[in-house]
Amino acid sequence: MQIEYTDPDEVFREMLEAQRVKPKVRNVSIADALNLVLAEDIISPIDVPAFNSSHLDGYAVRSLDTGDATPQKPVALNIKGSIDLGELPPASIQKGDSYRVRTGSYLPEGCDAVVGKEDVSVVGDKVYVAKPVKPGSEVVRKGSDVAKGMVVLRAGRKIRAQDLGILRLLRLDKVKVYSKPRVAVASIGSELTESIEEAEEGKTLNTHAYTLTALIKSVGGEPLYLGIVPDDPKAIRSTILDGLSKSSLVLTIGGSSVGEADLVSKTLQTLSPTMHKHGLKLHPGRVAGCCVVKGKAVITLPGLIQSTINAFVYLALPLIRHLSGLDASRCEATVRAKLAEDLIFHRFPDFKKMTWVSLEKDRDGLIAHPIRGDSPMLNVLVRADGYILTESNKMIVKKDTSVDVSLVPGLSSLP
Amino acid sequence: MQIEYTDPDEVFREMLEAQRVKPKVRNVSIADALNLVLAEDIISPIDVPAFNSSHLDGYAVRSLDTGDATPQKPVALNIKGSIDLGELPPASIQKGDSYRVRTGSYLPEGCDAVVGKEDVSVVGDKVYVAKPVKPGSEVVRKGSDVAKGMVVLRAGRKIRAQDLGILRLLRLDKVKVYSKPRVAVASIGSELTESIEEAEEGKTLNTHAYTLTALIKSVGGEPLYLGIVPDDPKAIRSTILDGLSKSSLVLTIGGSSVGEADLVSKTLQTLSPTMHKHGLKLHPGRVAGCCVVKGKAVITLPGLIQSTINAFVYLALPLIRHLSGLDASRCEATVRAKLAEDLIFHRFPDFKKMTWVSLEKDRDGLIAHPIRGDSPMLNVLVRADGYILTESNKMIVKKDTSVDVSLVPGLSSLP
Repeated sequence: MQIEYTDPDEVFREMLEAQRVKPKVRNVSIADALNLVLAEDIISPIDVPAFNSSHLDGYAVRSLDTGDATPQKPVALNIKGSIDLGELPPASIQKGDSYRVRTGSYLPEGCDAVVGKEDVSVVGDKVYVAKPVKPGSEVVRKGSDVAKGMVVLRAGRKIRAQDLGILRLLRLDKVKVYSKPRVAVASIGSELTESIEEAEEGKTLNTHAYTLTALIKSVGGEPLYLGIVPDDPKAIRSTILDGLSKSSLVLTIGGSSVGEADLVSKTLQTLSPTMHKHGLKLHPGRVAGCCVVKGKAVITLPGLIQSTINAFVYLALPLIRHLSGLDASRCEATVRAKLAEDLIFHRFPDFKKMTWVSLEKDRDGLIAHPIRGDSPMLNVLVRADGYILTESNKMIVKKDTSVDVSLVPGLSSLP
Repeated sequence: MQIEYTDPDEVFREMLEAQRVKPKVRNVSIADALNLVLAEDIISPIDVPAFNSSHLDGYAVRSLDTGDATPQKPVALNIKGSIDLGELPPASIQKGDSYRVRTGSYLPEGCDAVVGKEDVSVVGDKVYVAKPVKPGSEVVRKGSDVAKGMVVLRAGRKIRAQDLGILRLLRLDKVKVYSKPRVAVASIGSELTESIEEAEEGKTLNTHAYTLTALIKSVGGEPLYLGIVPDDPKAIRSTILDGLSKSSLVLTIGGSSVGEADLVSKTLQTLSPTMHKHGLKLHPGRVAGCCVVKGKAVITLPGLIQSTINAFVYLALPLIRHLSGLDASRCEATVRAKLAEDLIFHRFPDFKKMTWVSLEKDRDGLIAHPIRGDSPMLNVLVRADGYILTESNKMIVKKDTSVDVSLVPGLSSLP
């Protein structure tokens, strides 16, 4: 199959439309929900706090009763008792009365202010207030944190630490989240080995699978490593079919360039794909491809590591995000940075270019340093904190340009 | 014990110096090393690639032999054979000879260039080269990715996906990483319950422990939840001692404000702490404290959630990072953002102030929106993406000021 280079966004769109796997929903205990993606809007069934409550340790009063208080002539109020934390409040407070309260104590009906214990004197069962207390003073209003009926968290949110507290506050035990999509990975190439001994004898140690499975985990998928497959159409075919039966998405690494070893693309053709593209207008990464077989995507990542990662970021990352209930974007976030030097492209004018950069902090913000180095170099990626995507037909981006640096979970880091 | 407010940085420094727990080192398989902190410099024992190798599929040649080539009079070279991936190369190449190679094939001594197969014609056992090939052309030089002796990764680095690939490339099976420090958490307060039924009857549902244990996990610790402890000095004492025996650091939540319930600080005093502070010049969070007992830190976090989190970020986060082999900073990273509105403080002039903000993206970068809301409100934190720290004696930060927003793993998110 001749490589025909296609706009990579178009390829992704076609693949997304042709594949029929949908995000799956499951129930999970709140204690296990951290970092999962919420699959339902969370609407509060209750007011928080459930009653007006006290903002400090002191005395719950009716502000009206304190209107005439002066340091010379403090108002004396009866201490009717204490309202402790964890107690329902008395039904209401009567004229001239007060209750001892703690921070968070619920307040009775009619009580509209709290005076801090530092601001009163107590003699026997009377509390003396030396100045008028404003209505609402030191009162945390019923429903002021969360009002009944309020949407507290929206579907599609990646659940954070503080969300667990509020989910529990709303008295929820479980929430609906999206299941992590299982992503199968096969390394293709007779030259590959997992054995350090065989690597000493010239074989290529399989390193990409380590990086890829870690990336899949980091972006929200569940990797299933299928091992090394030799350059043999039968073996490739049965591995891909095995992967398709066990996962939502199959990634192959290697065997995708034109030539003797372009076995994956040819083999995929025998599986009656409903869509099939080989060749992206993306550099590095142009020999990547993808197809859809039995409603599931198979993405063929090139073997040179930068191309592997670029094609992963361009085609696999947004699909994994989509299958996890997130938006199908190619990063988790972007940050603005100033380009440290000119970025000049000499080849592939009508291709998009991905440039990995390291980030450095200076007084005014972030500086992006393009990392020089060839596609096979793993060391480039070790120094990388994020990538810049340059549109096709743009062959130079000048130094000091403000660029968007995309961050990929598991790969990126901010200084 | 009277609260005496102290500079929070000073308190942290004292605690760090007084506690005697050190980061622990263990060996871990590379497959399990993602997100752990490297405890050794990784120095490459080998050159990568091990030999000069080919950058594409084609023919390995001596550039000298092609000096006279023209389209009219191509130079014919003998094809001596193929060098496949995973094969050691022949010792050397002779004048007038060439080898069929694939991308990544090792090259023999004396071969200094590769010609792509698209740029040659082959007839029988001869390959015809139609123009001179430059020395070094399409050759990936031995050691050009990683040179023997080079420091590839430094101790203290949080291991990323791409690092796993390079560690494997260097033929390592295991690496030294720091152990995750175990962090014990006790929720203090007789008003607390874990039961939704009891919460209906007025008790306070314990929600903070969910948030705190998730935060501990996210920042690199291993949480050990000790449960709810009633307001009883004996119970508090035995729980803290239990926590100290099982972990590197104990956090208590609640029971730290002045008054009837200031039991934790008093109880800690009975444990002969080598340092003990109660009160931070930090708002919100001022009633937090810490001490060191038996060489381990006990941090007393206030019970109102924003104060809980602020004190966690100020005292616990940098200690957990330190015990994980990271720098003792109060965030994972900071980003620059423009303040969306004036930040005005009315109280606590000589205190540092922590303001939680939500982040929004606009054309020029990030905008930080201070989140209004009181210390007990969990909802404030749900909207928070990071925090701004304002120095003491600074009572206003003007709209549009460029501020540093600190990001806390597990709590923060970038738009």
